Amino acid sequence: MRRGRRAPAPQAKPLAGPPRQLSHPFTPQRLFPDDRIAAMHDLALKVLEELGMKILLPEACRIFAAAGARVEGEMVFIGRDIVAAALDSAPKRIAMKAPNPDWSRDVAPGRVIFTPGGGCPNVFDRVRGRRPGDLQAYREAQMLVQSFGVLHKTAAAPEPQDVPVELRHYAVLEAQLGLTDKPVFVAGRGRAQVMESFDLLRLALNLTDDEFEAGAWTSTVVNTNSPRLLDRPMAEALIDFARAGQMSIVTPFCLAGAMAPITVAGALVLQHAEALAGIALTQLARPGAPVMYGGFGSNVDMRSGAPAFGTPEHVQMQLGSGQLARHIGLPWRSAAGTAANVSDAQAAGETHMSLWGALMAGATLVVHAAGWLEGGLTLGFEKLVLDVEALRILEHLCTPPDDSDAALGFDALAEVAPGGHFFDTGQTMARYRDAFLPPLVADLSNYGSWEAAGQQRADERATAIWQGILRDFTPPDGAGERLERMADYIARGRARGGAAVVA
Amino acid sequence: MRRGRRAPAPQAKPLAGPPRQLSHPFTPQRLFPDDRIAAMHDLALKVLEELGMKILLPEACRIFAAAGARVEGEMVFIGRDIVAAALDSAPKRIAMKAPNPDWSRDVAPGRVIFTPGGGCPNVFDRVRGRRPGDLQAYREAQMLVQSFGVLHKTAAAPEPQDVPVELRHYAVLEAQLGLTDKPVFVAGRGRAQVMESFDLLRLALNLTDDEFEAGAWTSTVVNTNSPRLLDRPMAEALIDFARAGQMSIVTPFCLAGAMAPITVAGALVLQHAEALAGIALTQLARPGAPVMYGGFGSNVDMRSGAPAFGTPEHVQMQLGSGQLARHIGLPWRSAAGTAANVSDAQAAGETHMSLWGALMAGATLVVHAAGWLEGGLTLGFEKLVLDVEALRILEHLCTPPDDSDAALGFDALAEVAPGGHFFDTGQTMARYRDAFLPPLVADLSNYGSWEAAGQQRADERATAIWQGILRDFTPPDGAGERLERMADYIARGRARGGAAVVA
Repeated sequence: MRRGRRAPAPQAKPLAGPPRQLSHPFTPQRLFPDDRIAAMHDLALKVLEELGMKILLPEACRIFAAAGARVEGEMVFIGRDIVAAALDSAPKRIAMKAPNPDWSRDVAPGRVIFTPGGGCPNVFDRVRGRRPGDLQAYREAQMLVQSFGVLHKTAAAPEPQDVPVELRHYAVLEAQLGLTDKPVFVAGRGRAQVMESFDLLRLALNLTDDEFEAGAWTSTVVNTNSPRLLDRPMAEALIDFARAGQMSIVTPFCLAGAMAPITVAGALVLQHAEALAGIALTQLARPGAPVMYGGFGSNVDMRSGAPAFGTPEHVQMQLGSGQLARHIGLPWRSAAGTAANVSDAQAAGETHMSLWGALMAGATLVVHAAGWLEGGLTLGFEKLVLDVEALRILEHLCTPPDDSDAALGFDALAEVAPGGHFFDTGQTMARYRDAFLPPLVADLSNYGSWEAAGQQRADERATAIWQGILRDFTPPDGAGERLERMADYIARGRARGGAAVVA
Repeated sequence: MRRGRRAPAPQAKPLAGPPRQLSHPFTPQRLFPDDRIAAMHDLALKVLEELGMKILLPEACRIFAAAGARVEGEMVFIGRDIVAAALDSAPKRIAMKAPNPDWSRDVAPGRVIFTPGGGCPNVFDRVRGRRPGDLQAYREAQMLVQSFGVLHKTAAAPEPQDVPVELRHYAVLEAQLGLTDKPVFVAGRGRAQVMESFDLLRLALNLTDDEFEAGAWTSTVVNTNSPRLLDRPMAEALIDFARAGQMSIVTPFCLAGAMAPITVAGALVLQHAEALAGIALTQLARPGAPVMYGGFGSNVDMRSGAPAFGTPEHVQMQLGSGQLARHIGLPWRSAAGTAANVSDAQAAGETHMSLWGALMAGATLVVHAAGWLEGGLTLGFEKLVLDVEALRILEHLCTPPDDSDAALGFDALAEVAPGGHFFDTGQTMARYRDAFLPPLVADLSNYGSWEAAGQQRADERATAIWQGILRDFTPPDGAGERLERMADYIARGRARGGAAVVA
């Protein structure tokens, strides 16, 4: 494509921002007829009433009993009146707060929020290989997430396994609050750690108790142990986050054919029952507490029993989850994912399938949207960069293109003779700087140039990108002050050996 | 995931079929308000009336002139009455016929048809590397396409460059009709070759002239030379295919910022004008001739001028094309694509983005759905296998899951204790064989097993799949008879030096 006069090359758009609240561009899609969604909801109520949930925390059982549930040992049979009251009091719109108010987010149906891969014990990059997560890698993950504006919450991975678990919450908050200014994640590892984490958030963000409780300054993901089991730390987290006005994301992890029924519809009924039980507990602990409906369902490979992601069943679980969430009117969390062990075509394919599934399903929060490998066992730095490319494309799609008369542009069409080109029309010259989203990792050069430049695959090119970000990273404004305000509290905590965790 | 009793492993589902006509599972999405789509249509009519098309074939100019168009040299100014009449007579539903009637397809809004990458001069596989297309590779591509039931037409790539162009149509039809039983592609390389190709199709398929003209036994893609130029072979193809009752797929290739306006809306107006001109020519040549509306639009990278695929602008062009196609009521063709040079994460990401774009846009025909690399310069065998995995997932999504009471399955839920598993419930045992789509290339094994097995990337695993298919390939029933019926005609054609092409 040769021509004489040509618009100068545009600059790359800033990766880090500006922060923008995204709304879904597409209509949420139906998988099941509405009456079958209603039937699934009713059946989930029957499951809770007749089969019940096993809840390993006596305090939670007492809360349910006080609300009128039948409790037999650890088995809790939750009546539909309890669920109905919970769905009535659960907020349909949640103010998710961030240290930097520009990153605060409206958590409500119609909005879309992307968060990086969470919960990964391991970390991988092409320079240092695959290894157990450590604090250095956890801090690096924060820097990467802070540097990509399309990631809307801090990284909850990789797990900093080199920090003793009693002290881990200190290191984790120092990293999140010292390296990012996005909404903070707190793991539900028992009351002692959660309470100290809340203390630290109030200190770091300079909030009174009332100010803290008035917004969701942090959130946690509560996974049920499907089928129908809620363990101690998870139950405790639901209660503690609710009482403090902080957000729980109740997420059964229902793998159809393994810990959930083999049918998509059956796995959804189980997911729905478990999510409703968790939501009910938050509302009994504190009516109006911020809580999200969560679904992370996929299937196992029936030949090996291995979890699979990006499959048709994964997408179908997403679509059905969206319908169930809309049936009860709550904002909801979905998740992308891949089972691939390396950032190859499989990894990209599975993540893209499940990202589009989340988009078609109208998910409010898309978790594991970047960097997840091996079904969540590893956070991959190259994978994170590659997925950010996908998310930037989806972000761009959230803004409809210019449809003004000038954009339709009869004048530009009249300016170019048949067989000519539009490189230098007035319309092109006026718009070329911002016309298109420039690629982040994608290499658009032809085969000869690509070959001459070393035949790098996309994951190889991604290495230089995360390396450059880490090399040039500067913490956001206010980070130093946040760390200072937490310093004494953390020093005292470390001195006394930290806080116990609940298993 | 350990357990005692377990369902035996299901067999892989057959890759080759059974043939199934797919319908879109999702609602086509709007990008522009309806009134702006109407404005684009009107502006396209104004472009045709006031700016005109340059048409390099005098016969086509005469046809337009006879219909009342103003013709000045090669410039043809097409009135909106001509377009309106064409849209009135163009069929809204086309019977696309195949040598095997099971592969015949209903080409109509709401249907979805996937075809492999076409038009590629080169071919790539990991064993033999990148090389110019030759007849051997073209024949191998037919075998691969025949073996994947999710590919609904023959391969129109790679170009068999070792066959003299005057003789190429013989070799190409021998390959398609001798190795597949799916709908056949004929390239529009001028009247002589097209007419001989029609003769050969009638012979091979044992059809009378009337039978041939009563269905679309073959199709061709007609690309305009954007902006506003229709060359000789393309114009001739439109006329010849229409007169023979065969299907033209009129596809402007509008790269925003290069041969089309820099705005998505402007590029769509140009695409629409050019497509309407082509459609009009088919209907003037023979009212009611089968013709598809085509859109293959994306953007160039403004830093390098290189074509980009799987971008937000590509998806937006797809969505807008779908709206314009629905505005005129015709079945329409979209296209997936990637600019990547190798089957890596970029290649997968771009193809997935544009496959989902086509799905969201409600495309009737998704061209280049498997195997396209380098923006169409190369057909990749591993890429084809990897894309078939994606297409099988989308195919699976075209069937809604079981939502019966048995699928919701209270009994199965009641059968499993809290914290248990569903590996051996009655529901699982009854359904495990067909419950999930088994992976084709995806490796779901854990990191240790994957590492021990040689750490193969997805594209490396794909090699063994196409190799196995080629090794075991058997031509479909009737292929030998088709070749026999063409043999004398082709021998005579070869003896006299074949048929001239028009450039």
